[in-house]
Amino acid sequence: MPSFVLTDVSSDVWLESFAVDAPALGLAESIAWKVTKERLRGGRRDGVDVVVVDNGVLRFSILPTRGMGIWNGWREGDRLGWDSPVSDGPIHPALVNLTADGGLGWLQGFDELLARCGLENNGPPFETSDGSGRGTLHGRIANIPATHVAVHIDPRPPHEIVVEGKVEETRLFGMGVRLETRISTHPGSNRLQVCDEFINLADHPMEFQILYHWNFGPPFLNEGARLLTPALQVLPRDAAAQAALAEYDTYRGPTPGFREQVFYHVPLASEQGESLAMLRDREGERAVVLRYRPEELPAFTLWKNTGGLRDGYVTGLEPGSNYPNARPFEKARGRVITLPPEGRRKAVMTLEVLATKAEIEAVEAEVGAIQARAKRTIHPKPVEPFAAEA
Amino acid sequence: MPSFVLTDVSSDVWLESFAVDAPALGLAESIAWKVTKERLRGGRRDGVDVVVVDNGVLRFSILPTRGMGIWNGWREGDRLGWDSPVSDGPIHPALVNLTADGGLGWLQGFDELLARCGLENNGPPFETSDGSGRGTLHGRIANIPATHVAVHIDPRPPHEIVVEGKVEETRLFGMGVRLETRISTHPGSNRLQVCDEFINLADHPMEFQILYHWNFGPPFLNEGARLLTPALQVLPRDAAAQAALAEYDTYRGPTPGFREQVFYHVPLASEQGESLAMLRDREGERAVVLRYRPEELPAFTLWKNTGGLRDGYVTGLEPGSNYPNARPFEKARGRVITLPPEGRRKAVMTLEVLATKAEIEAVEAEVGAIQARAKRTIHPKPVEPFAAEA
Amino acid sequence: MPSFVLTDVSSDVWLESFAVDAPALGLAESIAWKVTKERLRGGRRDGVDVVVVDNGVLRFSILPTRGMGIWNGWREGDRLGWDSPVSDGPIHPALVNLTADGGLGWLQGFDELLARCGLENNGPPFETSDGSGRGTLHGRIANIPATHVAVHIDPRPPHEIVVEGKVEETRLFGMGVRLETRISTHPGSNRLQVCDEFINLADHPMEFQILYHWNFGPPFLNEGARLLTPALQVLPRDAAAQAALAEYDTYRGPTPGFREQVFYHVPLASEQGESLAMLRDREGERAVVLRYRPEELPAFTLWKNTGGLRDGYVTGLEPGSNYPNARPFEKARGRVITLPPEGRRKAVMTLEVLATKAEIEAVEAEVGAIQARAKRTIHPKPVEPFAAEA
Repeated sequence: MPSFVLTDVSSDVWLESFAVDAPALGLAESIAWKVTKERLRGGRRDGVDVVVVDNGVLRFSILPTRGMGIWNGWREGDRLGWDSPVSDGPIHPALVNLTADGGLGWLQGFDELLARCGLENNGPPFETSDGSGRGTLHGRIANIPATHVAVHIDPRPPHEIVVEGKVEETRLFGMGVRLETRISTHPGSNRLQVCDEFINLADHPMEFQILYHWNFGPPFLNEGARLLTPALQVLPRDAAAQAALAEYDTYRGPTPGFREQVFYHVPLASEQGESLAMLRDREGERAVVLRYRPEELPAFTLWKNTGGLRDGYVTGLEPGSNYPNARPFEKARGRVITLPPEGRRKAVMTLEVLATKAEIEAVEAEVGAIQARAKRTIHPKPVEPFAAEA
Repeated sequence: MPSFVLTDVSSDVWLESFAVDAPALGLAESIAWKVTKERLRGGRRDGVDVVVVDNGVLRFSILPTRGMGIWNGWREGDRLGWDSPVSDGPIHPALVNLTADGGLGWLQGFDELLARCGLENNGPPFETSDGSGRGTLHGRIANIPATHVAVHIDPRPPHEIVVEGKVEETRLFGMGVRLETRISTHPGSNRLQVCDEFINLADHPMEFQILYHWNFGPPFLNEGARLLTPALQVLPRDAAAQAALAEYDTYRGPTPGFREQVFYHVPLASEQGESLAMLRDREGERAVVLRYRPEELPAFTLWKNTGGLRDGYVTGLEPGSNYPNARPFEKARGRVITLPPEGRRKAVMTLEVLATKAEIEAVEAEVGAIQARAKRTIHPKPVEPFAAEA
Repeated sequence: MPSFVLTDVSSDVWLESFAVDAPALGLAESIAWKVTKERLRGGRRDGVDVVVVDNGVLRFSILPTRGMGIWNGWREGDRLGWDSPVSDGPIHPALVNLTADGGLGWLQGFDELLARCGLENNGPPFETSDGSGRGTLHGRIANIPATHVAVHIDPRPPHEIVVEGKVEETRLFGMGVRLETRISTHPGSNRLQVCDEFINLADHPMEFQILYHWNFGPPFLNEGARLLTPALQVLPRDAAAQAALAEYDTYRGPTPGFREQVFYHVPLASEQGESLAMLRDREGERAVVLRYRPEELPAFTLWKNTGGLRDGYVTGLEPGSNYPNARPFEKARGRVITLPPEGRRKAVMTLEVLATKAEIEAVEAEVGAIQARAKRTIHPKPVEPFAAEA
């Protein structure tokens, strides 16, 4: 498989720019595709590396400098991602002070389609009373530059395109976990896959958390848009969500002054162990579908943040190893993963972009068929062990 | 008007270096001028962009990477600015940890002729007791790289030279205000103008504060130098200033061990709404004059910090939207600006550099004429609503 | 002496890359040597400058961007330094948030053979109860880029090779001390010398602390390795060290779960005022020797951190101006240095790398001869004024 190393710190490889396509590899192509890489300059993005994959149908941008997050994407005119108030991104991690604003500094750089939250912690800022533990909002992984980036093109049809990255969250006397990700698609596909592994780099057990903060705004999100996902249980995270529970799976239009609402789901899987969440627009003409395996990612969080268009009109579909409560809360409920030395943990997700009513109806039927396997319980208020009860 | 974009993140424009002068534009010139741009390398300045404007009489350096501050300037041998203990600047914001030193980290990068303070807060570090608000010394704006930088040259005499910049202070669930500045002069002039606009980028009301920290050392500041400014009220900020009130408008020579003294002024304007502050040296041979409109900037702060030459022998002339007290103090006294959605607020200042006794005497007369419009009250100690009473 | 300036911020000099050797200077050479400089790219090391000195026997890497620390070295196959869990270094200071993790953020970037600790403080994080003082682990100096870097080659035999650097730790109302270092060797030598001066840049007295965190892993450190150093007093820092006092000068093999042990020494000097510490491997076939003058560096700290190989199996030999207790503790015991205006303080160390039993035996004899000058007191538990008593 033709492979191109764009960054490798151990061998001091780094390419300022890069491009590959089928003609360059002498491959036949029925649909034109390419992978390019550049370094951005100027403003708060100065020094950020971006890898753009264009498979001829989907185009998306990966950010090695921001922990191999996915900045944004497009299917023709339909943008994947959202308009963050952070409008000058992608922001270089050196300009994001995670400890600022009482541990909310992460929000100074948040504008991605996919931002991973973790690995030491993935919820809100916290500090244990004895000072032995603390963390900042959503952890560090989205603000750590990758140590290794490579592009692989399968010479055999369907010519899989893979962007591989490694990101290490390490320090002496602390975290020592490496993310190895393979973000892949193939020419002409309406899908991309994120295949992650988390590897204990230490000689002792290591705990970690991961949450995938997938974020969508217009055109997939609009007034009357809906979320469809098979679930065993659904609950409001807090009083604010509780008050809006009746309409938890539909969306308002842009509403300046709207306060975020969060709903926790225990996902329900198919017989094959797969679950999914679909966000479809009001018209039922376009949708995004996230597929994952609850045995890998047993918690699903829905974030509704339908403020004004310029305030960040967005919803988050967030499969995770746990719910984004403070880490000690999750730890006490057995939802923090422990990796033994050399231990690995895998998580795979697929993002599908739908552009026809027929496709959307087929996924609705799929959700329905899975939901038919078990009853959905909707809790009227926050309940243990998922959220703090009032 | 010939325009040159040096940085624009939305269109991925960034120029490593740039130069323009009259011959390059085919313009006639009676006095040689030029505008250049470079990126600094090495040390703590690595990666800082500097735009130098030389109008033939005045030369000054603008720092897009440090929020469009003005690093320093010269009128022939007379330097505008000061010798900060931070002697290796301009410091890249990525190396300034604003939350360090108990929220005083801003001082690690402070060496400018003009540093803007704001926009979320412009005074000392604070934290509200319920944790809902906090801020670091003088805010973030001086450490945010500009998203857009352009140079405009008017082809018509007097060939105005404009450096335009946009700086955004934004985050999800927080600040969303853009500074748009136009820093201008024209060939042969002894003046530069700073014309700022602050624009609410959000769909809901946004509060902000701004203070212009203009800083001068020798040769304008020396033993016996004086500040002349028309004022309705003058008061010491605290006990340290109170003890030195008798000589608040004159300066000592370099005095190792000197502790800063701050005096708040309610400025008095001319019939046309203009006010000014002049710092003139002991000999009355050179002076800097700052002109502004109290309706835009209703608070004037005088900072006297006449320590040793190597400790930062400097005075600050600081027009602002408010006094640099902690933000909650200012908020409670109605001195925090609220911008409605799409709201804008403007502030214009002119810096004039005088090199003859005649010019200085004329400005002294101007100050006198404005002061003749109303009595100056000098409060013997800190008084409300400007400062906390003992 | 041929001199080459690689970085000088005051004259805006910075070289992206550089190389010099004897042929380039027209010098005769009996052993090939060279000095090279490059800027690293990619990952968390992006933008870090590295100067590599290869004297034909010893090769070592200096990090101007990390305060002129020494990243690592080699004598043929024997590596000087250690395998930090921070395996993707050298880390750019812009990506090290010193205030993170409760003031332990320094550990996010720690992977050097020599990391200087200081200059405002060199011990653990602390905060005075009245808020007047605070500091983060091991201070800032290892994360400040040098303002000046130069290479000097003596045209006369033995052709001394010098890498000179200046690093300033400054801010308004705070620290104002410059480190001037000369790191030198000569072709064919098994030694390198670090000659530091600390200079008060202010017009008033300035306090500072310095500790040299020299760190060694395999092959010098292995199970059965030993530390030999002449001492007047030895004591455990705390209860954890006290429990392991019996074997304080020998080492275990890699032991996952091992907790660090720290032993303080009052060093004993020769008649000429020199002291030394040798770490030799179990076999007595290789060793590193650190030579210094207790009148310059009166405190010696031994750090034993023999965890798993992937957890950072390492020992630190740490001459310093004081013990790495919190600064207020050291201050109260008279172990913080005060420099008058223009004051300077010097510290010189030599690192020697031994590769034969004969050399090692000679140094053992040297240690024995110095120890014969005075009795060694081993305190069974932490004692004042060196450490807090239980």
